[in-house]
Amino acid sequence: MKFCSDCGSKVEKRIPEGDNLERDCCTHCDSIHYSNPRVIVGTLPIKDNKVLLCKRAIQPRYGLWTLPAGFLENGETVEHGAFRETKEETSTEVEMGKLYAIFNIPQIHQVYMLYLANVVKNDFSETPESLEVKLFNENEIPWDELAFPFVPIVLKKYFQDEKKGEYPLSTQTIERPARNTNQ
Amino acid sequence: MKFCSDCGSKVEKRIPEGDNLERDCCTHCDSIHYSNPRVIVGTLPIKDNKVLLCKRAIQPRYGLWTLPAGFLENGETVEHGAFRETKEETSTEVEMGKLYAIFNIPQIHQVYMLYLANVVKNDFSETPESLEVKLFNENEIPWDELAFPFVPIVLKKYFQDEKKGEYPLSTQTIERPARNTNQ
Repeated sequence: MKFCSDCGSKVEKRIPEGDNLERDCCTHCDSIHYSNPRVIVGTLPIKDNKVLLCKRAIQPRYGLWTLPAGFLENGETVEHGAFRETKEETSTEVEMGKLYAIFNIPQIHQVYMLYLANVVKNDFSETPESLEVKLFNENEIPWDELAFPFVPIVLKKYFQDEKKGEYPLSTQTIERPARNTNQ
Repeated sequence: MKFCSDCGSKVEKRIPEGDNLERDCCTHCDSIHYSNPRVIVGTLPIKDNKVLLCKRAIQPRYGLWTLPAGFLENGETVEHGAFRETKEETSTEVEMGKLYAIFNIPQIHQVYMLYLANVVKNDFSETPESLEVKLFNENEIPWDELAFPFVPIVLKKYFQDEKKGEYPLSTQTIERPARNTNQ
């Protein structure tokens, strides 16, 4: 941030009174601009012990496989965001299950919240965001063509949990190099 | 948002290509500025079945009682944010437990993530953010002086769960009138 989004003047980084972290503070109107982590919501959509994956039709990681997930939007709940993202990326309306995995990616200011979901219709298909949408069993997963670090972690967890018949919530932290975190 | 934080020019609300929601788009440099929900992290700090509450020394809700919680900051995990906020508001370093309650407050673009925590030291005390910090059993809770809607909900849940000895994660949505969501 270089300019104040309220008045257009320059901002400077300083610690506001009563705070203990540097913020973007306007040099003219005294607005304080906070930057906080974003929530990514998504699902692990299941049908007959197979997982529905999407081949990305957009950057980053075009052409690689992922689970349906995206940024939580203002005005929606985490479950609804996960449902919406799943529909946007797979066309199908899943039956939402329990919160299954949380991933902290602190360097890029992201928190993932992934839900189990049941694929209850056969209408999943490619979308503007997905070149291909397909069910995979454990042996068919394209392990070398997964888009993001969280994907193999949560897939391995699922196939292990599936053998035990128990699906506890897990929380993990993924270390990544810092980068620009604009969407 | 009225001005572009990258170049200081005016922004306009429009739906960017490939998107389906209105965003703040710069009329000069084409930057797109996203606004997303914020995460509030906190704890339900317990000692001998009593809950540690804080009497707020800051606005909003000055003088009312709450659980320690605050905005997740860039660069930290949800658990660490909850631990940090608890220390900032109670002085004590709790032993973190499991994720216990999620609250969606979609109208004000907030997601609460509250953890169970054990109070393991007796060094809790007032802080710059809390006029008073005190343990309450169920009969002592100042039910008419609680700061936010989530506080009685999670306190009632805890005292019910405590009788059963089971502490499942719950997710609830709190409806509130929309307001300016700056911190």
